[in-house]
Amino acid sequence: MDGQSATRERLISEGMRQLLAHGYDGVGIGPILKAVDVPKGSFYYFFQSKDDFVVAVVEAYEEKYRQVREKFFTDMSLRPLARLDAYFAALEQEYKAAAPYAGCLYGMIAQSAAGRSAVVLDALAASFERWEKSIQGVLAAAQQDGDIDSDENINDLTASIVDAYEGALIRAKAKDGVLAFTRFREIGLKRLISPTKLNVR
Amino acid sequence: MDGQSATRERLISEGMRQLLAHGYDGVGIGPILKAVDVPKGSFYYFFQSKDDFVVAVVEAYEEKYRQVREKFFTDMSLRPLARLDAYFAALEQEYKAAAPYAGCLYGMIAQSAAGRSAVVLDALAASFERWEKSIQGVLAAAQQDGDIDSDENINDLTASIVDAYEGALIRAKAKDGVLAFTRFREIGLKRLISPTKLNVR
Repeated sequence: MDGQSATRERLISEGMRQLLAHGYDGVGIGPILKAVDVPKGSFYYFFQSKDDFVVAVVEAYEEKYRQVREKFFTDMSLRPLARLDAYFAALEQEYKAAAPYAGCLYGMIAQSAAGRSAVVLDALAASFERWEKSIQGVLAAAQQDGDIDSDENINDLTASIVDAYEGALIRAKAKDGVLAFTRFREIGLKRLISPTKLNVR
Repeated sequence: MDGQSATRERLISEGMRQLLAHGYDGVGIGPILKAVDVPKGSFYYFFQSKDDFVVAVVEAYEEKYRQVREKFFTDMSLRPLARLDAYFAALEQEYKAAAPYAGCLYGMIAQSAAGRSAVVLDALAASFERWEKSIQGVLAAAQQDGDIDSDENINDLTASIVDAYEGALIRAKAKDGVLAFTRFREIGLKRLISPTKLNVR
C-alpha cells in the first residue's frame, strides 16, 4: 500500500470508530484529523466534504461485513437457516468484544442523518438494500429446501429480520448489553422465520 | 402556569424537538436557547447541565407517551391484544404526521449517549423499564384470557416487541418510511406474539 492509500485508510478507520461511538452529528472532521495526525489539506485531497467522507466510511463498513456474510452464507456444509444463524452468532461474538461502543453503523447514521443529508441517506439505503439482498438469498434457499413456507414473502421477512436486529442493537446500548443480542437470536429471529416451523432448526 | 414554568416548558419542548432530530451529540444548549429566545442564566436556573436537561426531556417524553398508553391500555372494551395493537396503530398515525423527523427519543439517545453519560443512560433505562412494565401488564392480561400461551415468558416477549419497534423506527428513517412501521405491526408484532395463535386476533 502506498502512503496515500494508507492515509486514506487511517482516516476511514478512525472515522468508523468515531461514527460508531458518536453518530453523524457527534463527529467532526477536526477531531478525526487530530486523532490520526493528518493535516486538513490531506483530508480534502481524498474527500470533498464531511458527507463524502461519511459515505466512504459506510462503504468500507459494508465491505467489511460483506466479507463476513460471504464466509457464512457460502458454507454449504450447513443448511441455509443454519448459515443465517451462524452469521448472526458471529456478529454476536464481535459485539461482545466491542461493547459498549459496538453497534451497527447503519443504525447509528440512520438515526441522526435522517432528512438532512441526501447523499448519506442514499448510501445508507443502498447498503441496507445489498445487505437485505444477501439475506434474501439465504432465505430463498431455505424456502427451496422446504424450511420456510412456500407462500412466505422473503423480502418482507428479510426486512423484518433486519428491523429486529437494528432494534436489538439499540437496546443493547440502552442497558441490556449482550442480552439484547441473544434475545434477537433466540426470540426475534426464530419467531420471524416460519412461526409454524419453530422447531425445524 | 407561571412564567417560570412556561420558560422551563418551552426549553423542554424545543429540546425534545432538537433531540429527536439530531440525537444527543447533535444538540447543544446554545441553539436551543436561541430557538426559544431564553438567556443562558435562565437555563442554568432550571438545569444544572446538558445531561440534567436531557434527563428532564426524557422524563417529559415519557410522561407524554405514558398518557397515550394509559388511554389505550385501559380500554376495557377491547381484548388485551387488541389494546396493544390500537396503541401501536396510534403511534403509527403519529409517526406519519411527523415524518421524516419522527422517531423514538429513547432510541435516538441510546444510540449516541452509550457509554458516555451515566445519568442519561440511567434515565433511559428507567424509562424503557416503565414502558416495558406497562406492556407486560397488557400481555399478562392476554395470557390470563388464554390469548397468549401460558408458558410464554411475558418479560422476554415484551423486550422483543420493544426491540422490533425501535428497529423499525430506525429503518423508517433510513429509507422505508411508514412502510417499516406497518411491517412492524403486520409481521414483527404478530409473529412475536404467540406464533402458534397467529389468527386469534
